[in-house]
Amino acid sequence: MPKLWNETIETHRREVREAILDATAALVSEHGLRGVTMSQIAETAGIGRATLYKYFPDVEAILGAWHERQISHHLQHLTHVRDEAPDPGTRLEAVLTAYALMTAARGSHDADIAAYLHHGPHVAHAHEHLHGLIRDMIAERAADGDLRADTDPGELATYCLHALSAASALPSEAAVRRLVQLTLAGLRNPR
Amino acid sequence: MPKLWNETIETHRREVREAILDATAALVSEHGLRGVTMSQIAETAGIGRATLYKYFPDVEAILGAWHERQISHHLQHLTHVRDEAPDPGTRLEAVLTAYALMTAARGSHDADIAAYLHHGPHVAHAHEHLHGLIRDMIAERAADGDLRADTDPGELATYCLHALSAASALPSEAAVRRLVQLTLAGLRNPR
Repeated sequence: MPKLWNETIETHRREVREAILDATAALVSEHGLRGVTMSQIAETAGIGRATLYKYFPDVEAILGAWHERQISHHLQHLTHVRDEAPDPGTRLEAVLTAYALMTAARGSHDADIAAYLHHGPHVAHAHEHLHGLIRDMIAERAADGDLRADTDPGELATYCLHALSAASALPSEAAVRRLVQLTLAGLRNPR
Repeated sequence: MPKLWNETIETHRREVREAILDATAALVSEHGLRGVTMSQIAETAGIGRATLYKYFPDVEAILGAWHERQISHHLQHLTHVRDEAPDPGTRLEAVLTAYALMTAARGSHDADIAAYLHHGPHVAHAHEHLHGLIRDMIAERAADGDLRADTDPGELATYCLHALSAASALPSEAAVRRLVQLTLAGLRNPR
């Protein structure tokens, strides 16, 4: 049964790959970005060095893959939050809150890695996707008259994402939730 | 008259230093960050290579000094805008507008240089200064009841600076001015 065999191989490869990414993330959060070697990664992931090199050529490639996975998990989570929100009135707030809390939790390691990787194409792509997600929710509520319609929803989404990036500099979850309220206040129809 | 002589020397050194920074900025904006050599800088500044090395050990040190000068000019400009504003009601808006326009004009070269220099201590110091400048203006107007007093002025300043960083992603001056209005709306007392 060659098909089943192939599927088994595929699953195995995916599991090894995940283990490599997890090991690397753990090592980076312990030793910092530049203190991690391929040997340590192989050891922590429980595979041989030769096997590791069959998956990735160097630490930078692993960090790139790890970052890509992080971003894709984040986007999935935000899409899920949007789809689970009971109505359009709460949807935008729920997604912005989830994004701000995510940004606050990201910590400095992720930011260091992102800077180190010089923002590859997958980062730009994910950012565009996120921007579109928020823009569409804003456009929907602007059409309903809840939010300001005098400004392009794309500009409003750009404002939102930048304003919420302040979450990484805030000291508590309460402060992050206040930030979401300030940001939403900027989107409302002017008095 | 040794004092006068010393002053002349001092003035001369300052002028050479400024010329080096100007030459480097011009070369970087033409050739990019990594395409600039000490020889080119000396030639463009109109001095010998040996003289250049008496001022700076390498290109990175020059870029650091140039960036420090940029930041200090920006802070001076914002302080000036604040002091020139006719009353507290317009002061904050004037400073936030100046900051947003500055951010929009900074372009990608400055951002590249800032990233390349890994945010030295002078950047952190300048950022703190700027944050304090905005925080104090917000506190003043919150005390007058114009802005929300339910949130710490420091948090509000953090929100402002992040929200206005969106200016670098906006397509026009009109869009930057709209961003300032959105940001200010977030600071107002909630309805």
